Amino acid sequence: MRMYDIIEKKKHGKKLTNEEIEFFVNGYTDGSIPDYQTSALLMAIWLKGMDKDETLKLTLTMAESGDMMDLSKIEGIKVDKHSTGGVGDKTSMVVTPMVASLGIPVAKLSGRGLGHTGGTIDKLESFPGFSTGISEKTFIDNVNKIKIAIAGQTKNIAPADKKLYLLRDVTATVDNISLIAASIMSKKIASGADKIVLDVKTGSGAFMRDEEGAIALARTMAEIGNGHGRETVAVVTDMNQPLGRNVGNILEVEEAIETLKGNGPKDLLEVSLTLASQMVVLSGKAKDDVTARKMLEETISNGSALAKFKEFVSAQGGDASYIDDTSKFEVAPIVEKVCAEKSGYINTINTEEIGIAALILGGGRETKESIIDLRVGYVFDKKLGDYVEKGDVIATVYASDEAKKEQSVRRFLDAITIEEEKKEVPKTIKMVIRD
Amino acid sequence: MRMYDIIEKKKHGKKLTNEEIEFFVNGYTDGSIPDYQTSALLMAIWLKGMDKDETLKLTLTMAESGDMMDLSKIEGIKVDKHSTGGVGDKTSMVVTPMVASLGIPVAKLSGRGLGHTGGTIDKLESFPGFSTGISEKTFIDNVNKIKIAIAGQTKNIAPADKKLYLLRDVTATVDNISLIAASIMSKKIASGADKIVLDVKTGSGAFMRDEEGAIALARTMAEIGNGHGRETVAVVTDMNQPLGRNVGNILEVEEAIETLKGNGPKDLLEVSLTLASQMVVLSGKAKDDVTARKMLEETISNGSALAKFKEFVSAQGGDASYIDDTSKFEVAPIVEKVCAEKSGYINTINTEEIGIAALILGGGRETKESIIDLRVGYVFDKKLGDYVEKGDVIATVYASDEAKKEQSVRRFLDAITIEEEKKEVPKTIKMVIRD
Repeated sequence: MRMYDIIEKKKHGKKLTNEEIEFFVNGYTDGSIPDYQTSALLMAIWLKGMDKDETLKLTLTMAESGDMMDLSKIEGIKVDKHSTGGVGDKTSMVVTPMVASLGIPVAKLSGRGLGHTGGTIDKLESFPGFSTGISEKTFIDNVNKIKIAIAGQTKNIAPADKKLYLLRDVTATVDNISLIAASIMSKKIASGADKIVLDVKTGSGAFMRDEEGAIALARTMAEIGNGHGRETVAVVTDMNQPLGRNVGNILEVEEAIETLKGNGPKDLLEVSLTLASQMVVLSGKAKDDVTARKMLEETISNGSALAKFKEFVSAQGGDASYIDDTSKFEVAPIVEKVCAEKSGYINTINTEEIGIAALILGGGRETKESIIDLRVGYVFDKKLGDYVEKGDVIATVYASDEAKKEQSVRRFLDAITIEEEKKEVPKTIKMVIRD
Repeated sequence: MRMYDIIEKKKHGKKLTNEEIEFFVNGYTDGSIPDYQTSALLMAIWLKGMDKDETLKLTLTMAESGDMMDLSKIEGIKVDKHSTGGVGDKTSMVVTPMVASLGIPVAKLSGRGLGHTGGTIDKLESFPGFSTGISEKTFIDNVNKIKIAIAGQTKNIAPADKKLYLLRDVTATVDNISLIAASIMSKKIASGADKIVLDVKTGSGAFMRDEEGAIALARTMAEIGNGHGRETVAVVTDMNQPLGRNVGNILEVEEAIETLKGNGPKDLLEVSLTLASQMVVLSGKAKDDVTARKMLEETISNGSALAKFKEFVSAQGGDASYIDDTSKFEVAPIVEKVCAEKSGYINTINTEEIGIAALILGGGRETKESIIDLRVGYVFDKKLGDYVEKGDVIATVYASDEAKKEQSVRRFLDAITIEEEKKEVPKTIKMVIRD
């Protein structure tokens, strides 16, 4: 078999066989196939596409290129939850304690934030002492004992995907549904969960800006999961404005805690309940969404979700007293109001730009090596559809540095469109896809 | 400017600017742009195409990436002739002395053969003492004195094309009209001729197998030449069977000599007269094809073309007595008849396979380092449209080694289809394109 012939085939739009897909993925991973042939193939795939069979095979081959997590020592059905990434997305911190409090095992591997979107691991480190670098044994023991553990990835998960992603990133071949879906799902499959709930974001702060593309990606990922015996549900949710009101690591932890206490914003609660109820149904603990949702709402009203969150933070070394008294969290030195420069309705928020504004404050990573300031960020007073008079407070900025604050606030205000005519506010939940 | 954005633009089918084309060609040539980005762009170009402006700019940028030959010291209008390569293609040796004998300067840079097609330089080295490694001064002096010189390329002509071609060759991005046309024409433009006649071969022994593709390539190359002020005529000619009867270096030289003596095969004479008459018209020595052709026919009937060929061979150190007495050429040790294995009409000849059969005998280069045996090859007795009885002689094989001969003859016979019903024989001259 020759890589040349595989490129030749795909450039003519022909379907690759399982053997050909294995040949190029494994050959690229072990270095026997060079970058320049692989990038030519990736561009041919970008332009000619891959069908369902090819995408399934690509995913599995990438998943099997490294360690495959064995979660069999955890009792019960393990349901994973994954988000394609957004601004102000703290749902994992709301969803996982709710679900775990119902006795469903949550064994979650999470990533750190990069670019304009945050990562759950960074946020959890807002608790002094909290560690995501726990051993595999502790991870499994914790899930068996208290039903919840969240750790950073330490194993060699899907190295083929890592290597291919780096190449795609410099050859303009990232934004292809099959390649994105295979990249995400290869890691999920290698991570060992039995069932998967995906939160596919769409809008100005999401990887997939247009809803049509997000739905196609959601459908493809559900197909992949179900095609490999990992029952998968994908929920397409709105990212045309930050989720909830708070953007920034400590600020988001505080908002997640408020939500578990029953005081959360409507959109965050809605996304959390929708994702969590899919997890409960997949785990077999409820027969349908409606029942699951009722059970989950009770975990908030009866305090069991909040109690589970405290238990979880303590179990991984964090100081859970911060949950009872969020005023203990460190506050940024500069706290200022951000005010409307004109009157009218907030019609659009360029959410990626909001993420970048938070990144400028020091709250995100520009490169993998960046050290982040957990205190900084924004808290929104007004969101899409709200009316403001010129001078009204739109948000509060939390900053550590005057110059960064100036630069960030300018970018923040420029990201928001205020107009006389009110536009329709996008729905929070777009679609639930079960394949 | 970033290579990433250029790839992104082309993958969406957008037109690249002159600055973008310069950026990637020069960046790839100087090593600042890596192989893997360039191959992704090449695949995007392969799939999305380049328009006339882009192709023109690509050609010029590649031409200007190295030395530009200065032929201004040669008096008169310099007309170059270039063939896209075929089997048995010895037209240069017929055309150039005919044209030079009319007083038109022929300053030709030629290549060596590679793969299944031969090169003029290899063929000319059949004359003992003949040298194509002459200095630039001798080259120019000879053209001024006797109107003809043929030399190998020693200068750094179009290094961008060399580097890009190597990459295209391993990434399945060779067979694209714009890229092929730019590759050929960049070298022609850098080689300094004022006007260009192109022989674009089509058929089973040609780079462009289908006539439609060959016509498109011919048209694109004519557009490029004319677009850069180098008046260009492209002639599309048949390569569904070897040109003439002889395939192999010494055998082809003998056939070229016979043609200059007035005893050449009809198809070789026809292609030679068509190409040469275009050159004569471009040089301004004749007002139209018909006049030019009459002048050229006279150079054969009055012996002036043959005399010019002798003068040329002598001037470059070759023993011209071989032209008067071709029996002086060394003969291969094994000479055998190749006979039909069944009766019927010769309907198709896989000409590329014939080229490979000759290569197996030792008459061609598999790699640039191969040493070739000038004596070996085939002489056809029968060609397309001819009827043969089983056992009739189709050709004579000239070989140096029994085992190679066996292997070659098998491949030769397998390349020829003999059928009961006679098929139409393809026309020798398909089209003349002046833009």
